[in-house]
Amino acid sequence: MMKHIISAMVFVYDFHPGSETLLTKHFASDSMNGYVDPFATDPSAPRPYSHHKNSILRHQQNNKLPEALIWNYIIQLTSALRIIHVAGLACRSLDPTKIIITVGNRLRLSCLGVMDVIINDTSTASNPVGLIQHYQQEDLTSLGKLVLALACKSTMAVQRENISTAVEVVTRTYTTDLRNLIMYLLSPQQRRSVTDLMPMIGARFYTQLDSVQTRTDVLENEVSKEMENGRLFRLLVKLGSINERPEFNMDGTWSETGDRYMLKLFRDYVFHQVTEDGRPWLDMAHVVQCLNKLDTGVPEKVCLMSRDEQSILVVSYAELKHCLEQSYDEVLNASAPTDNVT
Amino acid sequence: MMKHIISAMVFVYDFHPGSETLLTKHFASDSMNGYVDPFATDPSAPRPYSHHKNSILRHQQNNKLPEALIWNYIIQLTSALRIIHVAGLACRSLDPTKIIITVGNRLRLSCLGVMDVIINDTSTASNPVGLIQHYQQEDLTSLGKLVLALACKSTMAVQRENISTAVEVVTRTYTTDLRNLIMYLLSPQQRRSVTDLMPMIGARFYTQLDSVQTRTDVLENEVSKEMENGRLFRLLVKLGSINERPEFNMDGTWSETGDRYMLKLFRDYVFHQVTEDGRPWLDMAHVVQCLNKLDTGVPEKVCLMSRDEQSILVVSYAELKHCLEQSYDEVLNASAPTDNVT
Repeated sequence: MMKHIISAMVFVYDFHPGSETLLTKHFASDSMNGYVDPFATDPSAPRPYSHHKNSILRHQQNNKLPEALIWNYIIQLTSALRIIHVAGLACRSLDPTKIIITVGNRLRLSCLGVMDVIINDTSTASNPVGLIQHYQQEDLTSLGKLVLALACKSTMAVQRENISTAVEVVTRTYTTDLRNLIMYLLSPQQRRSVTDLMPMIGARFYTQLDSVQTRTDVLENEVSKEMENGRLFRLLVKLGSINERPEFNMDGTWSETGDRYMLKLFRDYVFHQVTEDGRPWLDMAHVVQCLNKLDTGVPEKVCLMSRDEQSILVVSYAELKHCLEQSYDEVLNASAPTDNVT
Repeated sequence: MMKHIISAMVFVYDFHPGSETLLTKHFASDSMNGYVDPFATDPSAPRPYSHHKNSILRHQQNNKLPEALIWNYIIQLTSALRIIHVAGLACRSLDPTKIIITVGNRLRLSCLGVMDVIINDTSTASNPVGLIQHYQQEDLTSLGKLVLALACKSTMAVQRENISTAVEVVTRTYTTDLRNLIMYLLSPQQRRSVTDLMPMIGARFYTQLDSVQTRTDVLENEVSKEMENGRLFRLLVKLGSINERPEFNMDGTWSETGDRYMLKLFRDYVFHQVTEDGRPWLDMAHVVQCLNKLDTGVPEKVCLMSRDEQSILVVSYAELKHCLEQSYDEVLNASAPTDNVT
């Protein structure tokens, strides 16, 4: 019945929610917010050269990317290229449409490997090493074009007839280092490598490291705060499995007696308090504080009142913690399959 | 009554819990775990030079720090020195006892500014700029000694009579780059600067950046997971404020009727299910899944059973979410002071 075997190749990449491409982030907005790409004007139109260049410079000044951001991108992209090239491979898809940006200006290369599969260059297949070296040099040219396009905020800046104007724009607007880096990358007559770019990047490595480290510190701080949430959440789940638990097969009033009764009153103390004039009292800080004290089992006493207000229990958080652990262990033991119970 | 005005100066630094000094981390263990500092032997003792050196090398090989870790420290310390020196200041306390390590081999300088206050060098006070330059050069010498001590795992390696042996040990054990860096820092006849160190660090900047970035990615992932906990925790607090709420002043059976009854049955569904043979069913994944569905209000239906098993309600999570919001708003409105209620 089956005549053809259909073979397919699937490329699987990590999914980064909320990411956008370098193209949409920095280039697509040119026309959207009223600006027009200065390089988009017809270069063959009969108008004085200086007028065209002035309009580019004006646009560029109003609209330019901070140089620090461009270096940030350069460091990340050269870092990626370095790893790819050291591994004896080439990227072949270093393009604004294939580079994605996630939170914190973090770049990631997309579509890696696709070109290797879909473009099968048989003419030079006899010399695979030479081929890879050729592609690696192309990667560096692509990087140069990308940086130039970013510095001019225009993908048309890298078209052959615009390049000299574009480089002039960069010379006027950015540091010599950036210009030199672009010139080096766009001079294909010499054999180039990522390592040669490092002196041009210079002390910006330190700046980059500092900013990433600072971000790490912020994130660490966030994690430590949020880890508290995980702890409190698990505590509430424990309480939830005990409080108001219906007919436990071994004891009809399990959740209403002994330790469980204390925990029930504590639950009321945490969640169901009312103000003096009878209004519900909602206070997240109170909830968090009570649960933290319960979790650490501090010796501090708390005054629990029965619902009929007839009896008052004074217990320490340490005792409550003990109750919680006891009761939870009881539920846990009861939940074990009977053949495990000795 | 008061005869003297007591003036005091207080130095305030950030507190980093769980940190230790570079000294305790890498040097103090030498004697503790049975190893003896090879440089601690009396250098004037009459034994053949090669025997002494061999024992050092043997110790060093068994016990040495990974070179990548040393470069990690170098990059962090030069980064800090660079910022201090660019600001026209000097560190003056670059010492294993004053550098603290926190999670992820992150270094932090401690006791900054103390030396500036307690050592008042009046002899050169007429030339403050020259003084700072002198201290900056001293910082670089301290860095050289620190790196040498780390590479030999011995604080005694940097004593004048040991230095040549120590450098020889480094030459045998580590890369030329590391040796050159130490030699450069320990040659005080020339004027040194942090910038000159960069070529020796070279592509290790990329390695360092990659490792910090990877750490950032891990942390981001953790934060996103833990943020979920915060969300679920807040949801449980909402449920807790509604479920089993006792006499609400406006309605004696508030928590047992209407929306609240549905939420009560849902609470039982989340926390109080039993297996077919009557054992409590505890499953954190079930709790998290139910709460996530509630939070998003998915159209999926859930089958809720009354405690007497006489009635069964089939409701969607969307309806339950609506119930929760309604009920919580009701409690929230009731909690507002009466003069705010219109």
